[in-house]
Amino acid sequence: VINAGKSQHNEDQACCEVVFVERRTSPRGRLPSREGGGELDGGRKGFYFHYWALFDGHAGSGAAVMASKRLHLHICEQLRDLVDILQDPSPPPICLLHDARASPVELSRMPLAEDNGEVPNDAVPRFHLEKAVSHESLVIGAIENAFKHMDDQIERERASQRLSGGCCALAAVYLMGKFYVANAGDSRAIIIRNGEIIPMSREFTPETERQRLQFLAFLRPELLGKEFTHLEFPRRIQPKELGKKMLYRDQNMNGWAYKKIEEDDLKFPLIYGEGKKARVMATIGVTRGLGDHDLKVFSSNIHIKPFLSCFPEVRVYDLTQYEHCPDDVLVLGTDGLWDVTNDKEVASVVMEVLTSYEPNDPCRYTMVAQELVVRSRGVLKEQGWRLANDKLGSGDDISVFVIPL
Amino acid sequence: VINAGKSQHNEDQACCEVVFVERRTSPRGRLPSREGGGELDGGRKGFYFHYWALFDGHAGSGAAVMASKRLHLHICEQLRDLVDILQDPSPPPICLLHDARASPVELSRMPLAEDNGEVPNDAVPRFHLEKAVSHESLVIGAIENAFKHMDDQIERERASQRLSGGCCALAAVYLMGKFYVANAGDSRAIIIRNGEIIPMSREFTPETERQRLQFLAFLRPELLGKEFTHLEFPRRIQPKELGKKMLYRDQNMNGWAYKKIEEDDLKFPLIYGEGKKARVMATIGVTRGLGDHDLKVFSSNIHIKPFLSCFPEVRVYDLTQYEHCPDDVLVLGTDGLWDVTNDKEVASVVMEVLTSYEPNDPCRYTMVAQELVVRSRGVLKEQGWRLANDKLGSGDDISVFVIPL
Repeated sequence: VINAGKSQHNEDQACCEVVFVERRTSPRGRLPSREGGGELDGGRKGFYFHYWALFDGHAGSGAAVMASKRLHLHICEQLRDLVDILQDPSPPPICLLHDARASPVELSRMPLAEDNGEVPNDAVPRFHLEKAVSHESLVIGAIENAFKHMDDQIERERASQRLSGGCCALAAVYLMGKFYVANAGDSRAIIIRNGEIIPMSREFTPETERQRLQFLAFLRPELLGKEFTHLEFPRRIQPKELGKKMLYRDQNMNGWAYKKIEEDDLKFPLIYGEGKKARVMATIGVTRGLGDHDLKVFSSNIHIKPFLSCFPEVRVYDLTQYEHCPDDVLVLGTDGLWDVTNDKEVASVVMEVLTSYEPNDPCRYTMVAQELVVRSRGVLKEQGWRLANDKLGSGDDISVFVIPL
Repeated sequence: VINAGKSQHNEDQACCEVVFVERRTSPRGRLPSREGGGELDGGRKGFYFHYWALFDGHAGSGAAVMASKRLHLHICEQLRDLVDILQDPSPPPICLLHDARASPVELSRMPLAEDNGEVPNDAVPRFHLEKAVSHESLVIGAIENAFKHMDDQIERERASQRLSGGCCALAAVYLMGKFYVANAGDSRAIIIRNGEIIPMSREFTPETERQRLQFLAFLRPELLGKEFTHLEFPRRIQPKELGKKMLYRDQNMNGWAYKKIEEDDLKFPLIYGEGKKARVMATIGVTRGLGDHDLKVFSSNIHIKPFLSCFPEVRVYDLTQYEHCPDDVLVLGTDGLWDVTNDKEVASVVMEVLTSYEPNDPCRYTMVAQELVVRSRGVLKEQGWRLANDKLGSGDDISVFVIPL
């Protein structure tokens, strides 16, 4: 991590941990035995996951600091109910026993008192439309809900803990042979494998999420507080242009068309600006992340939070499907990196630095991360921080993880 | 087109046309002259587009028949205002003159009476945040809005014309060197170029649009009429399972998680079933298309239409970017084709049939289409219609266009 100098505390925060997920025990200390499962040996039952995450704070470091200390614990908590299920190769049970705090046991394997007289294979014709759910999708669901619980915790504790602002969150979870990369915001993850770039995330910005936001504003116009319109226009409209025809697009359109300008169109557009300058209600440039519960449009009482989502998109990479070499890596970076460089440039720095170290040198990945950060920062010249190509360096905090696959 | 025999009139309908888009003249017959443009020669000013479309009707052929006769006229109508703009290589004007029915003239090029004293280059600093809009995105917007106008016309005339049901719509527009492929429903378009498959559409079904539909139902629960829940479950829940934990997902989730079953969860899920059997409110298996204004949940007063979108997704293929050979084609097909075959199989039939005809034989593309239809239908055997691999043939109407690039 490098601090851009715009704040005393880093707005970028990071975390990497090995986390043990302990199987949740029944509240009465009695563990239901399970067909096909072994007896407990008295030791802790569970599994480990490896975890790396970047949090890019805005309007303060509070949310980013808290998320960096807690998100992995929320992921662990969500996974605790799944310990037995994920370790069992048979498909996950659709329905669990009543007792929510007991270890989950598949309904069809456990005769129920009220089911007297029913034979197990009744289930087949009765539930012939049953959808198969994979183990992988349970892990995805666990990570998604962990982000939600993290966001709820920030909401609850923001007053007592004086947590300011919000943060983008990018987390990589390695579990049972697979990488789960969860992204909420504008950080980015890529895998570089044998020189090939595999995107592991996409950015959530006012431009990429325009239609979702316009759809919400269309259905809930009261969220716009009479100050904004859900339509997009290529520029501000002047009052004297009333009645003229101007390009617009709504929640249903990807293309543009002309419409006659009406009074309501003179309001400020919900989504406005292009690229890094695009904003939701002229306020925020990312549309997913944690925190921001108190964020309002400047000098108004209009809340931004309803338009932001705390849910990540989770992509899965199966490590067992490919034989990896020491130069294959997963790179996580905040926008401080990606604003001034692209996937290809990052891949070439990765390959350049890795080849200058021995394949078994444990420092080589750290050196790549350091090089990526330093190059994006640039060098202080008379005209400010400059990159090697003399373009402006990143003025933002920069964080990078380089994780060998 | 082949009729499956399930209805007297084809539920699949098709259309192909060359359409002239005539520049809209001013209502007073006076055409404003335009800087850089030539004088009119008295002839009709405009351009042509080529058009192919497939309409897959359901619950009757009415909507499909009407759309096949009219959609291209709506596209033409939307393009009429754009004749000058699309032929002018400079970027489209953001704002047009007041008179909506006059030929569009760029604001900055046409001095306005009320703008006396303003110099044109004022526009630059004032609108420095102006977004660039491409010609291509105007055509996309025109096609999107043409689908909407087509749907509105079906709504208006459905009673007087006795238009029953609804239809999926897949349309390919060739205009100024580019193919615009617009899809609303579960038909599919692919380009086969030098043996390579380039997808030109994606399908809109309860499964692919689950999150949009759940989001709408979450925000507008009254649309569910107390009969449905916006949550998805892998199977129906039985009343006796109340209080147990079952897998679910909501509008924010791609993965699955367990939740305790409450009273409200016993309602039927908004999206239910898998693959071809997935339905919105147990009623319809496609989520985009034209018509269906009267469609209700069986023996209820719950309307389905609010959950359906008439807007297509438009993909663009630039023909000038590549040197095409006589075997490069665009294939459009309804689900009658794609239910029993896949992109690869279609590509291999295309190549197989094309190589058996001379490259300059004009029949060869028709023969490919015929072969694709006939193979998907299969042969009538004792156990019904069977494909060459003895699998069940398509029981649906089948339509195919094979268009040389």
